[in-house]
Amino acid sequence: MRIELKRAIYEENDRLAGEIHEGLRSRGVFTVNVLGSPGAGKTSLLMRLAERLAPDPLAVIEGDVASDIDARALKALGIDAYQIETGGDCHLNAPMIQAILGKMKIADDSWLFIENIGNLICPAESVIGEDIKIVVASVAEGSDKPYKYPLAFQRSAACILTKPDLMKAVDFDEVFFRSGLSSVAPEAPLFTVNGRTGEGADALVEWLRAARGAARA
Amino acid sequence: MRIELKRAIYEENDRLAGEIHEGLRSRGVFTVNVLGSPGAGKTSLLMRLAERLAPDPLAVIEGDVASDIDARALKALGIDAYQIETGGDCHLNAPMIQAILGKMKIADDSWLFIENIGNLICPAESVIGEDIKIVVASVAEGSDKPYKYPLAFQRSAACILTKPDLMKAVDFDEVFFRSGLSSVAPEAPLFTVNGRTGEGADALVEWLRAARGAARA
Repeated sequence: MRIELKRAIYEENDRLAGEIHEGLRSRGVFTVNVLGSPGAGKTSLLMRLAERLAPDPLAVIEGDVASDIDARALKALGIDAYQIETGGDCHLNAPMIQAILGKMKIADDSWLFIENIGNLICPAESVIGEDIKIVVASVAEGSDKPYKYPLAFQRSAACILTKPDLMKAVDFDEVFFRSGLSSVAPEAPLFTVNGRTGEGADALVEWLRAARGAARA
Repeated sequence: MRIELKRAIYEENDRLAGEIHEGLRSRGVFTVNVLGSPGAGKTSLLMRLAERLAPDPLAVIEGDVASDIDARALKALGIDAYQIETGGDCHLNAPMIQAILGKMKIADDSWLFIENIGNLICPAESVIGEDIKIVVASVAEGSDKPYKYPLAFQRSAACILTKPDLMKAVDFDEVFFRSGLSSVAPEAPLFTVNGRTGEGADALVEWLRAARGAARA
């Protein structure tokens, strides 16, 4: 019975996510669902992407269990950011996205980044209206993450490795990480981006533009 | 109906967790449920604690979504470790603990550390038979974690800050972190421990021995 109910909840979520996606897509909005652990550097990455995607219209939905720290940090940079506080829920779902979209004025042909809750497990299980998922992992989390949390990497169209300046200090084993990523997500490219300096972000932006072009084709 | 069912599942979990706790406690076993994000340094911390708690009997249950990397690393050091692979579940629950305890031979008066799934949200919501929870956070995750993930800190009897050697490189704001911790968990002491060198672990061991003494009293 538990499984039946879970399936029903997922089916309803997926139906609504499909509607959200269709609505955004029809207006030329390209939507990226950003996954990653707490403190992986998702928000800093979005700052560097927003700088590079300007003057394209761009909006961000920030998901957190509590606090609006991230949305405020983005707004301080002039980024159009909206906070969802789940109050406990471990991932964003389609009803939450539908509710906040009702309060937003997203320009046609925008980029829409949705920073999911810091959690490498639950957010990977749901769609929320996105075109693609991407997963952000910091070198400080260690090189075994694709082995331990395969679904987040498997469901993501690209993987972004952050905090590369710490690589040496934490003995990050890039070969082991890449091998794990290849085994669960053989198609997903790996980008290394320093979220503070923006080093490496240009290649990711180029890939995002290509992914967007492909989704529109 | 969803809420009703969820409540029923939690009630059944809590009942079983109570039984597990009673069984362990009656044999003098002190059980610590270890929470933290992916890559927070939970396993390294357990290595340093095991070294310092020897020759006390000690066992570890390792929880992961996938892989037995952590249990193997602990066994390589001679630690009595058992892996639970949840295959997707985002936290350990009491039935999982009951099942693995049936395969373990835990000596009377042991320390039992249960490393929960790397997830700062869901594991905080359940009891699994423990005497206490502790939460591990790495400085690389940033100083805002108690604000963003309050429940994990609130439910924990102590907080352990790891990877202090990275503090400067990541501009960790210890005052902000402590302030967040105090606001959600005013009673919880903060220990800073380097999981590689063991620096700072002695104070935590002393606190654990006191917590164990208090639980037995």
